[in-house]
Amino acid sequence: MGQYVAPLRDMQFVLHELLHVEDELKQLPKHAEIDAEIINQVLEEGGKFTSEVLFPLNLSGDREGCHHDKTTHTVTTPKGFKDAYQQYVEAGWPALSCDPDFGGQGLPLVLNNSFYEMMNSSNQAWTMYPGLSHGAYECLHEHGTPEQKTLYLPKLVSGEWTGTMCLTEAHCGTDLGMLRSKAEPQADGSYKITGSKIFISAGEHDMSANILHLVLARLPDAPEGSKGISLFLVPKFLPNADGTLGARNPITCGAIEEKMGIHGNSTCQMNLDGATGWIIGAPHKGLNAMFVFMNAARLGVGMQGLGLTEVAYQNALMYAKDRIQMRSLSGPKAPDRPADPIIVHADVRRMLLTAKAYAEGGRAFCSYVALQIDKELNHPDEEVRKDAADQVALLTPVIKAFITDNAWIATSECMQVYGGHGFISEWGMEQYVRDARINMIYEGTNTVQSLDLLGRKVLQDNGAKLRKFGEQVKAFVEDNGTDEAMSEFITPLADLGDKVTKLTMEIGMKAFQNPDEVGAAAVPYLRVVGHLVYAYFFAQMAKIALAKQDSSDTFYKSKLATARFYFARLLPETAMLIRQARSGSANLMALEADLF
Amino acid sequence: MGQYVAPLRDMQFVLHELLHVEDELKQLPKHAEIDAEIINQVLEEGGKFTSEVLFPLNLSGDREGCHHDKTTHTVTTPKGFKDAYQQYVEAGWPALSCDPDFGGQGLPLVLNNSFYEMMNSSNQAWTMYPGLSHGAYECLHEHGTPEQKTLYLPKLVSGEWTGTMCLTEAHCGTDLGMLRSKAEPQADGSYKITGSKIFISAGEHDMSANILHLVLARLPDAPEGSKGISLFLVPKFLPNADGTLGARNPITCGAIEEKMGIHGNSTCQMNLDGATGWIIGAPHKGLNAMFVFMNAARLGVGMQGLGLTEVAYQNALMYAKDRIQMRSLSGPKAPDRPADPIIVHADVRRMLLTAKAYAEGGRAFCSYVALQIDKELNHPDEEVRKDAADQVALLTPVIKAFITDNAWIATSECMQVYGGHGFISEWGMEQYVRDARINMIYEGTNTVQSLDLLGRKVLQDNGAKLRKFGEQVKAFVEDNGTDEAMSEFITPLADLGDKVTKLTMEIGMKAFQNPDEVGAAAVPYLRVVGHLVYAYFFAQMAKIALAKQDSSDTFYKSKLATARFYFARLLPETAMLIRQARSGSANLMALEADLF
Repeated sequence: MGQYVAPLRDMQFVLHELLHVEDELKQLPKHAEIDAEIINQVLEEGGKFTSEVLFPLNLSGDREGCHHDKTTHTVTTPKGFKDAYQQYVEAGWPALSCDPDFGGQGLPLVLNNSFYEMMNSSNQAWTMYPGLSHGAYECLHEHGTPEQKTLYLPKLVSGEWTGTMCLTEAHCGTDLGMLRSKAEPQADGSYKITGSKIFISAGEHDMSANILHLVLARLPDAPEGSKGISLFLVPKFLPNADGTLGARNPITCGAIEEKMGIHGNSTCQMNLDGATGWIIGAPHKGLNAMFVFMNAARLGVGMQGLGLTEVAYQNALMYAKDRIQMRSLSGPKAPDRPADPIIVHADVRRMLLTAKAYAEGGRAFCSYVALQIDKELNHPDEEVRKDAADQVALLTPVIKAFITDNAWIATSECMQVYGGHGFISEWGMEQYVRDARINMIYEGTNTVQSLDLLGRKVLQDNGAKLRKFGEQVKAFVEDNGTDEAMSEFITPLADLGDKVTKLTMEIGMKAFQNPDEVGAAAVPYLRVVGHLVYAYFFAQMAKIALAKQDSSDTFYKSKLATARFYFARLLPETAMLIRQARSGSANLMALEADLF
Repeated sequence: MGQYVAPLRDMQFVLHELLHVEDELKQLPKHAEIDAEIINQVLEEGGKFTSEVLFPLNLSGDREGCHHDKTTHTVTTPKGFKDAYQQYVEAGWPALSCDPDFGGQGLPLVLNNSFYEMMNSSNQAWTMYPGLSHGAYECLHEHGTPEQKTLYLPKLVSGEWTGTMCLTEAHCGTDLGMLRSKAEPQADGSYKITGSKIFISAGEHDMSANILHLVLARLPDAPEGSKGISLFLVPKFLPNADGTLGARNPITCGAIEEKMGIHGNSTCQMNLDGATGWIIGAPHKGLNAMFVFMNAARLGVGMQGLGLTEVAYQNALMYAKDRIQMRSLSGPKAPDRPADPIIVHADVRRMLLTAKAYAEGGRAFCSYVALQIDKELNHPDEEVRKDAADQVALLTPVIKAFITDNAWIATSECMQVYGGHGFISEWGMEQYVRDARINMIYEGTNTVQSLDLLGRKVLQDNGAKLRKFGEQVKAFVEDNGTDEAMSEFITPLADLGDKVTKLTMEIGMKAFQNPDEVGAAAVPYLRVVGHLVYAYFFAQMAKIALAKQDSSDTFYKSKLATARFYFARLLPETAMLIRQARSGSANLMALEADLF
């Protein structure tokens, strides 16, 4: 039951009409040859693969889940997962945006990003297996030695091997400074690693020949806390120099978790019993190296939220057109039938449009940031690279938290469109809600993201990065301020821009006196910034749509209506958020813990 | 894992200090003998029963679920459920607030209400079995013939038999006017009923000797639509005149649903194959009679939301005091430990206080409405009965929708406090979120509740019922307007009261022109009214707490801090909601269905 069709038209709109990626990529020597045709072709193929191969395994994967054999420490993934992975590898999808030096196709990340949206719409639990590999690839690509790269990267690029990130231990998740896993240096330059990790997504499975674990552990001489953590590469099977598989390394799965959602992905407790590993990057600098992985993963989690929002929307829309129930308040719309399709009801439309606006806003936002990463990595001008890097740093926590919070709202609204059937498993809607819930937690909870945004990304440089983004918004406001047709978008956008500036200064001042003010404001603050970003993109999209609203392509009418809905119904959340963010820390901190 | 302790102190605060139930009940001849001691004793016993007998079955009941045998059409409930029900019956709990004429204990509903909160905190899925019986009892008590009452009520009161409500069919839930089940009159005054029902909670199970189904169906001469529906009593086993069980009636369970939550409750597809039934109330007036049941059920669903909010809060609080992770932003609070307990963090407190405030606000609100029902039923003065009935009518949809929406928010926040562990089944937090989700759907979706509030309860009498409630609020504002210590509560309460009045008039005017304006405003409107109610009760509670804040009983400090949190952090949602409600229908209705 259910459906998924890749939203190619909207993806093309975002990439070509909104972001002009072809022009942008021309400025990057590495991608100068990429044109719209190639992009559209990849999107189309990606749409086919994901809807035909991955989507049909989503509901069954959820119901079947993974199975752990305690004797052999092996994990069996749901029926069809392994075969789908084989098809994925054979089609060359893992290599899409990877470095040609290691067998990659060298396509831009902005394109890979759209493909990940499709994969996540089709099957988030499945997508996490290759998704983590991609993070491991990026981390090794940036911090690995030439020998490590030569030995491991081609296997990750081809998809022959997959990767994981092993950070969390039972007593520490957010607070990695407390971690206890130990790495003992060996005479041959390797390390013996001992410890126990939990919540390791795709930690053990049957889909690939080998698994490369990126493991955080402490060296014997390590300082306490987060400055004494090193990163190690710990393969499930120790590879021979020619890349063939050698001995089984003692890093094994002790159990898998039963959890609320993403049942198709194995969430493993991993035991390292003197497992052999090699250090990545400098001793005690493991968190630095791991942050490459974590930033990639945070963007990836945002894409998970976006993917679920889109697929939930598509299904709720189908149901709302099909299901008949009650008459429209303004008189029968389908008088020949016993009731009207529920899409005639205002509140059903509110629920659908909430998901539609969050999907389309998220798509524009994620594609924009992915393009900035391409620029950060490949633009010939250092200044441009630096600006792009600043934007990526600023917006990564917003992508992670804002999009996943919105996905929780949107999937729940889409489930509500189904009434009682939404709660029933076979309809598939409640799975989207359950799957969406993890995205607000892992890779740094959304509270951690908000502290990263407000504390590190905004206040630490006195708002410089935020100001840069604000100037972009201001320039757009000024360019369009005299266009009367645009005033319904420009006025609230300009107003919110001003409010964000004032709010940031106010919190910054208060934080000088009391650091708890940052913690007290961070979560609503992040959502305010998220809305500023969405208002900026919806205003731009509305401008394009306004110019083409009389076109025979009705896409633009739909886009314009969605932008209007966003400004009328979703942006007003900022009126609440700003009040919350300004309310200060006393209403949270005054009560003694014992009196709760 | 997990805990539940009945919040006796807060219940006593609400009943005795806020609502003065002892004084109120003295005015009702039926309950004039009830004093605080009896009330507290029942609460204490209820707390023991629910935390010792029901709570330990909650997690296991979720994991085991119900089992349906396709051959025998029987349903087995999770291990321990049947035995717990036996204990419940033996202790006389089903009879608590029932009519002594039929074996009841005749205690007030306001007390039964607190007991239901405890049951729902302990085990919502289990509580639905007796919960539906209570609705069936109320419906039969009001609309049954004397013979029906004599035969059936004592069995429901004792708990020997349970009840269900059979409304929904596959093609109609909200739109009962479309239902197809048929009732053929028989020579002996009974009916043969044929049809198929879905989503029948507790439709079949192994906990009681007999099940009394209240079934909606059409008579042969029935007019089309909702005015042609009659209500029938269809027992699983046809009783003999002496109450012993006779023949098995052909109303059987064809399947049970797999669903997101409340796994311990059997959600049944019921097939009626010429089942024998007896009409309740007048022909074609079945919906009227069923509304007694549905109104009771809607209040019951609100209590489910409240119960889940409370238990999720208790567990998140325990975890937040126990789990150490990171240091407070304002410096170490537990310097002798490797990290601080997470309750030091501002945003963890925000999440906890959200649940605390929604639990305490909901408790005050539900107890108040339950007391109004006692007055509606038993006050000697007709005027008072009428006023109470108006308040109950007005506030029932608010209880159902506002409390269950809040429970969804609160259980999710409490789960978030656990970080990654919140997503893992064995910790129990994700179950509260899954269970909470159904409460927004069944007994009329929350959209249906909001249309009931705005369309029927407010606009249909030109705001008369709402005005009555508003006058109560105004009187409180005037009585306390000069008290400086109260101004932080009185000012925003008065302001919101004015805004609700204006908003209601504005929507009323717009609705004259375009009925879709009601549908477009209803959902945010209901939440605005919900906040007015909570602001009113929190202001009253703050007043009591202010007067006793220096007492050695720290309860009052906690209450005051919770009220302040509510006004600072939750009430500001109205700034968003009012903008949404005022934004009109065009942003929802303009887009053609095909262009979504």
